[in-house]
Amino acid sequence: MKVYGDIQSGNCYKVKLLLNFLELAHEWIHIDVLKAETHTPEFLKMNPNAKIPVVQLEDGQLLAESNAILGYLAEGTHFIPSDRYKKAKMYEWMFFEQYSHEPCIAVARFIQKYQGMPEARLEEYQKLQPKGHKVLAILEQALDGHHYLLGEEVSLADISLYAYTHVADEGGFDLNLYPNIQRWCQRIANSAGYVGMNTQTTAV
Amino acid sequence: MKVYGDIQSGNCYKVKLLLNFLELAHEWIHIDVLKAETHTPEFLKMNPNAKIPVVQLEDGQLLAESNAILGYLAEGTHFIPSDRYKKAKMYEWMFFEQYSHEPCIAVARFIQKYQGMPEARLEEYQKLQPKGHKVLAILEQALDGHHYLLGEEVSLADISLYAYTHVADEGGFDLNLYPNIQRWCQRIANSAGYVGMNTQTTAV
Ligand SMILES: N[C@@H](CCC(=O)N[C@@H](CS)C(=O)NCC(=O)O)C(=O)O
Ligand SMILES: N[C@@H](CCC(=O)N[C@@H](CS)C(=O)NCC(=O)O)C(=O)O
Repeated sequence: MKVYGDIQSGNCYKVKLLLNFLELAHEWIHIDVLKAETHTPEFLKMNPNAKIPVVQLEDGQLLAESNAILGYLAEGTHFIPSDRYKKAKMYEWMFFEQYSHEPCIAVARFIQKYQGMPEARLEEYQKLQPKGHKVLAILEQALDGHHYLLGEEVSLADISLYAYTHVADEGGFDLNLYPNIQRWCQRIANSAGYVGMNTQTTAV
Repeated sequence: MKVYGDIQSGNCYKVKLLLNFLELAHEWIHIDVLKAETHTPEFLKMNPNAKIPVVQLEDGQLLAESNAILGYLAEGTHFIPSDRYKKAKMYEWMFFEQYSHEPCIAVARFIQKYQGMPEARLEEYQKLQPKGHKVLAILEQALDGHHYLLGEEVSLADISLYAYTHVADEGGFDLNLYPNIQRWCQRIANSAGYVGMNTQTTAV
């Protein structure tokens, strides 16, 4: 299996994290978004939406969208609950991640960490702060008295939301305000197979 | 089952459409976003993210996020492929819908249809136009020579993406540019059990 991505991107890192938890061998091909490497004709053939991550499965078939990739890879494992309602709640969190969480936390982080706070995006950055705290407060509340987002069992919801949450400070969000989130991050970081975001991305 | 939503919102309408295709009885409770009815203390207890749709299942359990709701309702039906890769492709389309499609098409439609093009949002509206055409072009290409997004069989991917696509003209996107999309919309509108977006939302 090949993964096209940048481990510093939360959307790609979540795939790396699951692959490590599941001990699935893969080759990591670094793609540089800032050099527009997702917009080459070859890349667009793999994903016309011009985004990483993309995985190429052993039979050559392609899959994009980080959370769809997680769902594919975790099929039949304990990362997807078998209970129908719990599985739907897992996807509820993953759609929340893509619609409400990532567009605040990841974009603020991008402006701060990668673009170095350009004047032109300062207003946008400032507007993202209260929105980001709103979604973090939702996570904080969901984790109150629980080990993981669905309760006591880890699932893809945790992997998906961990990716950008644990580096939210790089987007200006002080995680000290969220003790439940901090404990949850620690719990995930202590799990067997855990790999950090700054790991060298060679094949496992 | 109770559905809290506004049928004129594509995210709510997609749930209505699937419920009708599956002939599932439900009560529809109208929620007015413009009157901030998703921000009342009672509503926030149902969904702390303050968004419709929300469904309350017969046993009282709650579920938010339109695409997670679709996944729950369609479990075990022909709207979800049993093939592992095809199912992942279905979710790929649904995450594409939430991350790349809805934030262009639905937001442009909201500015044009509901807000009547206020000066303050004109620049944003204009920026959404090329982005919207980009995602429509991706759909157009995927439907080339195919009846549905996954090939010849309908799936949740079609229901999810149909919701805002078929009213994209209300956001300024001329669908005459996209003959494959038009045929696909027609195909869905001709399906048994189809219900339009302007239907009165009483229980089926
Ligand atoms: N919804 C997508 C989002 C992926 C995404 O936004 N990827 C960024 C890097 S984090 C990218 O490839 N951007 C390049 C571009 O949009 O041109 C997913 O979850 O995979
Ligand atoms: N990702 C959500 C989006 C839902 C959404 O944005 N709903 C809008 C109406 S279309 C809403 O409730 N807005 C009220 C608000 O944000 O205050 C889903 O797919 O259900």
